[in-house]
Amino acid sequence: MSSSAQDNRPANGPLVLSIDAMGGDRGPATIVAGLDIFARRNRSAQFLLHGPAAQLDPLVQKKRRLAGRCEIRDAQGVVSMEDKPSHVMRNGQDTSMWSTLDSVRNGEATVAVSCGNTGALMLLSMVRLRKLPGVNRPAIAVLWPSKNPQGFNVMLDVGADIRADAQDLLKYALMGASYARNGLALDRPRIGLLNVGTEEHKGRAELKQAHDLIAAQAEQGNFEFVGFAEGGDIPGDRCDVIVTDGFTGNIALKTGEGTASLIGQFLREAFAYSPLSRVAALLALTSLKRLQARIDPRRKNGGVFLGLNGTVVKSHGAADATGVAAAVELAYDLAQSGFGDRLAARIASAASTAEDTAADDGDEQKKDGTDP
Amino acid sequence: MSSSAQDNRPANGPLVLSIDAMGGDRGPATIVAGLDIFARRNRSAQFLLHGPAAQLDPLVQKKRRLAGRCEIRDAQGVVSMEDKPSHVMRNGQDTSMWSTLDSVRNGEATVAVSCGNTGALMLLSMVRLRKLPGVNRPAIAVLWPSKNPQGFNVMLDVGADIRADAQDLLKYALMGASYARNGLALDRPRIGLLNVGTEEHKGRAELKQAHDLIAAQAEQGNFEFVGFAEGGDIPGDRCDVIVTDGFTGNIALKTGEGTASLIGQFLREAFAYSPLSRVAALLALTSLKRLQARIDPRRKNGGVFLGLNGTVVKSHGAADATGVAAAVELAYDLAQSGFGDRLAARIASAASTAEDTAADDGDEQKKDGTDP
Repeated sequence: MSSSAQDNRPANGPLVLSIDAMGGDRGPATIVAGLDIFARRNRSAQFLLHGPAAQLDPLVQKKRRLAGRCEIRDAQGVVSMEDKPSHVMRNGQDTSMWSTLDSVRNGEATVAVSCGNTGALMLLSMVRLRKLPGVNRPAIAVLWPSKNPQGFNVMLDVGADIRADAQDLLKYALMGASYARNGLALDRPRIGLLNVGTEEHKGRAELKQAHDLIAAQAEQGNFEFVGFAEGGDIPGDRCDVIVTDGFTGNIALKTGEGTASLIGQFLREAFAYSPLSRVAALLALTSLKRLQARIDPRRKNGGVFLGLNGTVVKSHGAADATGVAAAVELAYDLAQSGFGDRLAARIASAASTAEDTAADDGDEQKKDGTDP
Repeated sequence: MSSSAQDNRPANGPLVLSIDAMGGDRGPATIVAGLDIFARRNRSAQFLLHGPAAQLDPLVQKKRRLAGRCEIRDAQGVVSMEDKPSHVMRNGQDTSMWSTLDSVRNGEATVAVSCGNTGALMLLSMVRLRKLPGVNRPAIAVLWPSKNPQGFNVMLDVGADIRADAQDLLKYALMGASYARNGLALDRPRIGLLNVGTEEHKGRAELKQAHDLIAAQAEQGNFEFVGFAEGGDIPGDRCDVIVTDGFTGNIALKTGEGTASLIGQFLREAFAYSPLSRVAALLALTSLKRLQARIDPRRKNGGVFLGLNGTVVKSHGAADATGVAAAVELAYDLAQSGFGDRLAARIASAASTAEDTAADDGDEQKKDGTDP
């Protein structure tokens, strides 16, 4: 089980993406419209689209670009946002979500994308794809706008599990480093461990223990460990990857989104204040749009589930077609880079003895460009 | 020890504020300049200013508005940002911070203000002022810009203690409600308990327990309990007070500050992009300044230490004169409202049996305007 699903695909065949058409707030038409946008930019990828065929067929027929590239897999059941994960696990065999994951499980597709219920998708992913050997708690990683040159930082876990012990945090560091290398093209990502201060004596016991575990793996794991990071470093430029437990990470993520939304509202109010400020807004429109584009959450839409045999991208439930296209593109990019295999190799290498290090590192360095 | 320091002050005498002149990043001249700004707006308050007299005397002499209102208390020692709290507790008797707190302890002043080392100030406050009966862990509360009509929400704890059990979270709810009543003039504040979802089955065990404890006190405590809140509610309008442990609260606070700083940078870059956008920026200047004023952290500068015999306001270490003036004003407003006594009464009432409730509520309702 340690090799991931992409091994099954023909050596030079097109990448196949498994897409859940159901479960998003805006319905399957938005998912198909998002696929269509992605298909305009990418001419090779193939899609398996899961959901009620009678509903999906006419939607796909209308998009000429999807002709011959999109196979519909009929699944009548739909997981709703209110469904309890444990209920879906026991009774969800007929759902589009289950079918979407099983295409990755049986090797037909390299990566899965869903807009559905996060808790159900995570539990079902663990059950159907299984955890990577050496991973106790999988994590959800997001890209967060930042002051760094690459424009984004990685943060994980943002809510797969509300608990994480020191060993879990070490795995998050390794998985986050792999994601930053493959998703942000950083040779040697800088990892920070989220805490309430940067002094080494501060914080909870498991954080001090995780601090030492991560520091000890930095050399072998090909990352730089900057030590403890603070909340301000998540959108900052002191590190590229922020490691934390899913409780803290989820609250930080939503606090950041809420703060951006508040400032957006203040900005609109400031420019709607008087006739003169409305004129100024017209003149400033290009600049304001430039700002909006940089903080638009749809640009990098998608939490990535890490630590499973196969990659799953969770798109925001409320995503519009642009957001869906971004999630599909993220999934494609990760599949294309062979991310799943690289990550599995990293985790296996960390679990094995230090002697195994050299051979493994040589493999990943090819991608990193340090050994072409 | 259950009655607070303001009992010692003459019934109608001016309020006395105890100010630590040292420990801020910008030195005592900034503190004195902040006092001067506040003194322009407020003509009655008196100040006890703590620090090296030889350094403070000439600074105060230069400000005519402070003449006759500012008494200097010579203290040679200074607590630096690097000093360990435990070291200050054992060896800090000669410091301006110690002297500042002792003026509240011995009843000479109603409230203390310091820009210094947060950890040292909290530990010293606990040792010199003592915790209120019924409070195990004091908390630091901040005002957070929000979508609510009052413009700000209260959040606590933002870093007094990295742990909080269910009983602590209940006390935070009671203290936060008192702060919102006195600091934001809300009759019946809405309290939310920070968690990773709003469903009652989610989250850590101590949060579910705290949920039930807080719900049971809502009627007697004269607040509304909205249940679990998420990170997005901190700057939102679903509640007025957000209750959490100091680890999570500190990370949320710094994530919010970091996000605001990132968006500010993006905004500047968007308007500096081209000659045309620089012209637009000139025309939009008034609107941009209106925005800046609403998210300016100096407007509501100051974390308030709650749960002690006496009120302590911690100003941001990097505060400029405007920020210092805001912290002093916050301290004055809280002292003026008799906040310390009200909060102590609330905590005592919650600890006592339900029969005691009626008498206590009548007292606070006068201030709330429901029983004039």
